[in-house]
Amino acid sequence: MKYEALPLTKLVEQFASLPGIGRKTAQRLAFYILTLSKEQAKEFSDAIVEAHEKIKHCAICKNYTDKEVCDICSDEQRDKSIICVVEDAKDVAAFERTREYQGQYHILGGLISPMDGIGPDQIYIKELLARVTAETVSEVIMATNPTVEGEATAMYISRLLKPFGIKTSRLAYGIPVGSDLEYADEVTLFKALENRSEI
Amino acid sequence: MKYEALPLTKLVEQFASLPGIGRKTAQRLAFYILTLSKEQAKEFSDAIVEAHEKIKHCAICKNYTDKEVCDICSDEQRDKSIICVVEDAKDVAAFERTREYQGQYHILGGLISPMDGIGPDQIYIKELLARVTAETVSEVIMATNPTVEGEATAMYISRLLKPFGIKTSRLAYGIPVGSDLEYADEVTLFKALENRSEI
Repeated sequence: MKYEALPLTKLVEQFASLPGIGRKTAQRLAFYILTLSKEQAKEFSDAIVEAHEKIKHCAICKNYTDKEVCDICSDEQRDKSIICVVEDAKDVAAFERTREYQGQYHILGGLISPMDGIGPDQIYIKELLARVTAETVSEVIMATNPTVEGEATAMYISRLLKPFGIKTSRLAYGIPVGSDLEYADEVTLFKALENRSEI
Repeated sequence: MKYEALPLTKLVEQFASLPGIGRKTAQRLAFYILTLSKEQAKEFSDAIVEAHEKIKHCAICKNYTDKEVCDICSDEQRDKSIICVVEDAKDVAAFERTREYQGQYHILGGLISPMDGIGPDQIYIKELLARVTAETVSEVIMATNPTVEGEATAMYISRLLKPFGIKTSRLAYGIPVGSDLEYADEVTLFKALENRSEI
């Protein structure tokens, strides 16, 4: 904007570059930063650099961690024989919120998507195969998103795992809890009907 | 979250502390920061500290600026005889987007709100009076928000300005352009009717 001070414009642009943050929200956030104390602004600034410097991928599951091996992989309480395969770290956070899953994870870091030029070699599939070879894994849960790419990746990996004689499973399809049937799409409703369970 | 690396948790908390940013969005933004290059992350981090260090209030209008006097106040092209009084810097940005207003601004930095313990002395009212005393001002436009506090502040200031013999005006009330009459509240509709203009 004309008349806007350069350091402020720069900060607004930084916020606006974040996903899902539009120009107006970016401006609101930048103005908020100006109202912080010097220490608070420094803390925010440091948190960005520090997270960027210290966070790396876990040597085993590829999740974000500040250690060599992440806390989930090094937790002796958790079941080492089950691996839940997800697209990215956000999905791990989602599963952890359920507080039900006690196995391990494997983060692919993407999905096979020929349209975007992402083949099986660009995501952590070899690393998953290395894990099932080295460790005693009894089940691999394919928990990629229910999209075309997610399905294709799940199918591809489950085919690769077949020779290992490991049980591979897929998340159940169905109507989301608390949703409205009226708004459910046909495919989901069909899957929910198909996989109905006795009560 | 349990298992989450500390530097990541810290960054998520920083984002979550921003207004209008919930926990999930904060996590999404933090994960996005991790995907940036080292230089980009550094730039973001620096923009925060730099904006915080360099941005101060304009000596005249109290708007954010990195100079002693802001670009609007020092622009010789703009009409020095009209002052638009607004609550904060965001409002200046809104007026500037219209590209119509060519006068000066005065930022109050808040509104009179006895409920929140904000009296006339906590906002830049004296500074406005000093301006109208020192400069040759012909009109002061009260452009505070159409809320109880905004109205009260506008009334209070216009009363203070009366002895100076300066014309004080208030933004027009009416139906917003592009809105639906069906959703207009009674007071707004009444004001729109009252202030109707001939076509």
